[in-house]
Amino acid sequence: MKSAKPYIEENKQRFIDELIDLLKIPSISADSAYNEDVKNAAQVVKEQLEKAGCDSVEICETPGHPIVYGEKMIDPKLPTILVYGHYDVQPPDPLDLWNSPPFDPIIKKTELHPEGAIFARGSCDDKGQMYMHVKAMEYMTKTNQLPCNVKFMIEGEEEVGSVNLANFVKNNHAKLKNDVILISDTGMIAKDVPSITTGLRGLSYVEVEVTGPNRDLHSGLYGGAVANPINIISKMIASLHDENNHISIPGFYDKVEVLTEAERAEMAKAPFNLEAYQKSIGINSVSGEKGYTTNERNSIRPTLDVNGIWGGYTGEGAKTVIPSQAFAKISMRLVPHQDWEEITQLFKKHFESIAPAGVTVKVRPHHGGQGYVTPIDGIGYQAASKAYFDSFGKTPIPQRGGGSIPIVSLFEQELQSKTILMGFGFDSDAIHSPNEHFGLWNYFKGIETIPLFYKYFTELSK
Amino acid sequence: MKSAKPYIEENKQRFIDELIDLLKIPSISADSAYNEDVKNAAQVVKEQLEKAGCDSVEICETPGHPIVYGEKMIDPKLPTILVYGHYDVQPPDPLDLWNSPPFDPIIKKTELHPEGAIFARGSCDDKGQMYMHVKAMEYMTKTNQLPCNVKFMIEGEEEVGSVNLANFVKNNHAKLKNDVILISDTGMIAKDVPSITTGLRGLSYVEVEVTGPNRDLHSGLYGGAVANPINIISKMIASLHDENNHISIPGFYDKVEVLTEAERAEMAKAPFNLEAYQKSIGINSVSGEKGYTTNERNSIRPTLDVNGIWGGYTGEGAKTVIPSQAFAKISMRLVPHQDWEEITQLFKKHFESIAPAGVTVKVRPHHGGQGYVTPIDGIGYQAASKAYFDSFGKTPIPQRGGGSIPIVSLFEQELQSKTILMGFGFDSDAIHSPNEHFGLWNYFKGIETIPLFYKYFTELSK
Repeated sequence: MKSAKPYIEENKQRFIDELIDLLKIPSISADSAYNEDVKNAAQVVKEQLEKAGCDSVEICETPGHPIVYGEKMIDPKLPTILVYGHYDVQPPDPLDLWNSPPFDPIIKKTELHPEGAIFARGSCDDKGQMYMHVKAMEYMTKTNQLPCNVKFMIEGEEEVGSVNLANFVKNNHAKLKNDVILISDTGMIAKDVPSITTGLRGLSYVEVEVTGPNRDLHSGLYGGAVANPINIISKMIASLHDENNHISIPGFYDKVEVLTEAERAEMAKAPFNLEAYQKSIGINSVSGEKGYTTNERNSIRPTLDVNGIWGGYTGEGAKTVIPSQAFAKISMRLVPHQDWEEITQLFKKHFESIAPAGVTVKVRPHHGGQGYVTPIDGIGYQAASKAYFDSFGKTPIPQRGGGSIPIVSLFEQELQSKTILMGFGFDSDAIHSPNEHFGLWNYFKGIETIPLFYKYFTELSK
Repeated sequence: MKSAKPYIEENKQRFIDELIDLLKIPSISADSAYNEDVKNAAQVVKEQLEKAGCDSVEICETPGHPIVYGEKMIDPKLPTILVYGHYDVQPPDPLDLWNSPPFDPIIKKTELHPEGAIFARGSCDDKGQMYMHVKAMEYMTKTNQLPCNVKFMIEGEEEVGSVNLANFVKNNHAKLKNDVILISDTGMIAKDVPSITTGLRGLSYVEVEVTGPNRDLHSGLYGGAVANPINIISKMIASLHDENNHISIPGFYDKVEVLTEAERAEMAKAPFNLEAYQKSIGINSVSGEKGYTTNERNSIRPTLDVNGIWGGYTGEGAKTVIPSQAFAKISMRLVPHQDWEEITQLFKKHFESIAPAGVTVKVRPHHGGQGYVTPIDGIGYQAASKAYFDSFGKTPIPQRGGGSIPIVSLFEQELQSKTILMGFGFDSDAIHSPNEHFGLWNYFKGIETIPLFYKYFTELSK
């Protein structure tokens, strides 16, 4: 396979323009107000897959947002790669922290991205990374170098837990049959430190509701005499961690995968600059579970974070009220062997059990997924490693990621194939945050590396 | 003085219609979006005071919302009563809990109000109670029975701390000179248990801000490794009360007025039905400071309540984010001898001192006021007691109130006169809450009782 570099060079501007067109669509899956935009994004993905050389592309409706499926089968005897990605994005708020509108993409240079980066919601997670695969496909078909069969499954519900994708996969084993699954929805350490994600954390996302009085009360007339749902929810949340920042839910750690000292020593070799890390997010001190490093805390250890809290009067000025209710959205990142449904139940049981007299508590399980680990001795990882070596000139470092792609463990269970996580973003790309961006260098590097994976995976499959 | 009953009977419908017109104006002082409505409400109050017989009425501009001042001086040798009230109202949210629009008043019968009650924001607090005084004035002037001089000072910033009224009072000692101040902005125990509020709690209202990372972070990439402002603010709020629900701010209780066992025994005589109390607000258990009854907890003891909390993603669906900031509005009800500015400083110092590494904390003092106690042996209280006896056929019970009218202690300090708190609402009228209402029986009872106070106060002043 010839290097894609010249082809990328020739088509650079078009590759950028096409991605920007896709990024202009506010395909926010969590907010039903954007259902039409989500549909439109699916339509654009379908058309681009057809242009890129897929033989048959269809929009598969679901009870929620549609899944775009496309394929090009050149020879049943050749291996089949299934590319997974998503065209939906996270909500952009808080909007006032964006330096440019989230759905009005602009290219700006940054310290880490001297060649420029595209600033827009979804630029990195995952429209930009997903679209690298569409352009890599275009390169291989237009230059008659596609070495194997390929299938694309691009969904619109990843940011809300892939609720309907799970059923789609369960009901389409034959259609989705493949030899390896390829995903770019993670990151790499640095331009000169290529890395491949070999592990993902699982997730359990719940919403809790604490109800006290049947109506908002005047804090002068009732203050001090009735349980205040906000004070109570604060106490309950505070009690979920002990003084060592261990999570205090009974049974929470029972099945946590314990790494050997050797494995932890191996991890510790990955370059990490605490000062730069703290500077990049503007904090003067890291904090977390006692006895673990920052890299361990956000990869091999489970966590519990409140992602949102609200209750009472939050408008301008003052209102002296004891609210009837207080709410919080809480997510737990899980590690291999922790079952997300079991953890969700443990949380529910515990949180309900610590509700004091005077309030009632509801826990609504939201969504979740299992953690995942990629074996580095399989041909999938080997092919990826060779591809990176060719395009980066360096052997990539295997790295555990802290994020979750709930669907990955389901793929293995349903389709009996392993997933290779070739991510080209940086942690500093601010995914899920204001001013999300994706470097042009990273975008083109991905398009250059992906065909090489096709080449080596086909060779190693012989 | 003849009973006002016949006059009220003749003018019933007009008295109701006039109040409803005033209630239709959304004069929300806390939200600048309603500045025009606040102005309009002041204009209506001015016109009604003129119609009620005041000789000169003026709208006094302030840096904030205007104060309506009116007076009728009949004889410098006669005593002067200063009536204080406010035409501004609390924000109506949460709107979805109102059974009818807050500024579209309707009359409905309830268990406690078989004669019907007006449902609207401000119906009880304080437009309805303030307007009783305007109609009582009308009765006395139209029937040539006004026994003394009267001054009205109706402000538009009570719900935001009377920031500008304080200066107005300081700068107008001569204009506001009076022998007693009369306010209806509190409640009474029950129709058959008339009571007069003899104490008010002070208030300190602050807003706190906890800042962690300089931007919202992906909870997968950073979860467990950096301090989450929501988890932190929850821990900090939880730590403000100990296991006995004592407030843990150093020095907070140092100056708290301690009641004698005899005084507490006297208080305990006021009728109180715990079951009915819990039923009325839909809770299965009261809770509060150990060692005190419910009536003590919400009147003679200081409290700390979170009135609002917000941070992170609070929209539909899920967002796995570690927010950059979390916020809370916190108010403390204070008792006699606690200085609100001193308490505000104690809170600030303490809250900032408990901020853990990894976050910065800001405390913004909002507003506040001192507590107040009315002597029951003064002629003001005696006149009120006689007035209630005539209109209710019963001697009223002196009662400590849990609410705050920050301006009252300032009146005493600046104008050297005592305040009589003749409130005609019920605790169950849901002031500051959805479905606030004011009974027609209470409205007319107030109009009937007020002139009797004028009569007895003038007599006792001789």
